[in-house]
Amino acid sequence: MSDQELSAELFEEESRMSCAESELKTCFIDELQLISGVTLRNVKIAFQTWGSFTGNNAILVCHAISGDSNAAAWWQKIIGSGKAIDTDRFYVVCSNAIGGCSGSTGPSSLNDEGVQYGSSFPSITVEDMVVAQIHLSDFLGINQWLMVCGGSMGGMQAIEWARGYSARVRHCWVTASASAHTAMQIGFNEVARQAILRDENFRGGDYYDFKAPKGGLAVGRMLGHLSYLSESAFESKFARNLQIENGVPDAGPIFLQNKQFQIESYLNYQGENFTARFDANSFLVVSTAIDRYSCDSLEGSRSKFLFTSFTSDWLYPSHLSQKLHEMALSAGCESEWIDIDLPYGHDAFLLDTEFQGKALRKLLSP
Amino acid sequence: MSDQELSAELFEEESRMSCAESELKTCFIDELQLISGVTLRNVKIAFQTWGSFTGNNAILVCHAISGDSNAAAWWQKIIGSGKAIDTDRFYVVCSNAIGGCSGSTGPSSLNDEGVQYGSSFPSITVEDMVVAQIHLSDFLGINQWLMVCGGSMGGMQAIEWARGYSARVRHCWVTASASAHTAMQIGFNEVARQAILRDENFRGGDYYDFKAPKGGLAVGRMLGHLSYLSESAFESKFARNLQIENGVPDAGPIFLQNKQFQIESYLNYQGENFTARFDANSFLVVSTAIDRYSCDSLEGSRSKFLFTSFTSDWLYPSHLSQKLHEMALSAGCESEWIDIDLPYGHDAFLLDTEFQGKALRKLLSP
Repeated sequence: MSDQELSAELFEEESRMSCAESELKTCFIDELQLISGVTLRNVKIAFQTWGSFTGNNAILVCHAISGDSNAAAWWQKIIGSGKAIDTDRFYVVCSNAIGGCSGSTGPSSLNDEGVQYGSSFPSITVEDMVVAQIHLSDFLGINQWLMVCGGSMGGMQAIEWARGYSARVRHCWVTASASAHTAMQIGFNEVARQAILRDENFRGGDYYDFKAPKGGLAVGRMLGHLSYLSESAFESKFARNLQIENGVPDAGPIFLQNKQFQIESYLNYQGENFTARFDANSFLVVSTAIDRYSCDSLEGSRSKFLFTSFTSDWLYPSHLSQKLHEMALSAGCESEWIDIDLPYGHDAFLLDTEFQGKALRKLLSP
Repeated sequence: MSDQELSAELFEEESRMSCAESELKTCFIDELQLISGVTLRNVKIAFQTWGSFTGNNAILVCHAISGDSNAAAWWQKIIGSGKAIDTDRFYVVCSNAIGGCSGSTGPSSLNDEGVQYGSSFPSITVEDMVVAQIHLSDFLGINQWLMVCGGSMGGMQAIEWARGYSARVRHCWVTASASAHTAMQIGFNEVARQAILRDENFRGGDYYDFKAPKGGLAVGRMLGHLSYLSESAFESKFARNLQIENGVPDAGPIFLQNKQFQIESYLNYQGENFTARFDANSFLVVSTAIDRYSCDSLEGSRSKFLFTSFTSDWLYPSHLSQKLHEMALSAGCESEWIDIDLPYGHDAFLLDTEFQGKALRKLLSP
């Protein structure tokens, strides 16, 4: 991929592609029993599907922290007609995680009294996200998935499927993920959470009738983007280039207050953009879920595993995928771990077609 | 250094040591001409000294972004009686950078009308910080420093001394620093700045008569601490340990809202602590100065250089020190670059006595 293409990727990450339209559908669960003991009532699971179900060709795709059910859009490098997850051959399903804000029940949803949950929304775990997907699987009549897969937070859900429900998971592909967050990963999430919690508009989470804590959410998202790229990706894209306003390069002296580096402009754009489509409470709930998740063993699992990682991903470094691979081998499972040498940082799992695609075709070949 | 000692270091970073007391003195400058063209009037330079001046034994120590003139406290691993910068032999001087908030003129200082500058404080550059130190040198009657040194932002000041005023700098030691910030370094500072700028209490910088933007400043500082450690330092110190409240380990389930990982508690402590001693406007001014600094050549310099870097420092990675070393060699200067293999991340320059000390003794040996 050229720098030009990478640039386009980075800036268009948020845009919704029209190439693979899929209607947003909803599955209802009367009562969802959470690990915490709390029962969540009248739960909605928003999901999308691509392709046709033929009995043993269903693939469940799990999204990352800022993702949604429109997998063919955010994972267009992997999912689509003729692609590694070929929608001409496979029946592809992706649901919005509970706790989120893209159709599934989350803090901004209405509770039994018809009021938005806000601070009364319960803690959610990765295990709970998967239990919700179990309900969805039953609703769709899918007893066994050909594959459950995902990157980053999506990878944790895929691990939890293979750990807890391996009879329903033939293949499990986990990319750029971890069995449990390290202190540094928790630290990055915590600073993003604090940006929200310390925003004066947060009001303990009950801000829906007032101004939303958009400043804090934007800062949290900017921090996320810092952690998704690598030093070399930042450098090849932005270096110390100055922002060009209105098509005219500003040739004035760099010490003037109003000068901006392109990297500054990029981060602010990403932060602003995110606040238009994401709810701060959902970020708190979902980021806490992944920080607290820990898979200590895959003992008893019968799934076949593929782990992929990226040499430049310092947020989910390769040794975390290696650890998962060793966990799978110790459990007597078939497993492959491929460490992919690409310079794009954590975002590589969204950008790479070639290496993940090759490993995936091998995994899914009969 | 054992984990226990590292732990003590990390938590005591902010504490002021009593081992090397030194009175805070002030040097006044009637008019300081800034690079921007603005003239700053009635400028105060706060500084401290250790040891006795004997004519050719003066060492100027430049502090990092959150530092101050009390160098014997924050750099106790390097400065003191019998240490690498031996206060029994050398006359050690450290001044608070202009734009700061520890005694030197900055945004919280009174302007000519007796009102705190706030948003009217001008942009400052690293070059301006050094010009202020030139005034201080003249005030102290020091024509030539035996050494000018510093880490991180302090290293940039040392570079600027050796670039612009090398006749006054015999030796220049730059540790964990860079000739110019990369896009990623600028990105980290920009997110911290945005945390402040998007705080409702910021009021465009004119908050001194109101609530300070402490939430934003705390988040910015937490982000700083994330970038100062390495993944392995975080892991050996915090791993996934839970916070123990009131001496009693909380054995409750991890999904409860009030549970905290130690890394979360550590970052919040650091953030809170910082707001008690640092001004948000100073952070904006000084972080912008270092982002905009760029030394493109050391041509014409006659100083002798030592560059040190740390293999685990991903904020100021080793290749940036290597680049400085190559710049010095191209300029025909004597130069040494030592890449030190320690696991502490960027903070290593504050924590290491052994390797920096050895290199420094060699540099300063007659």
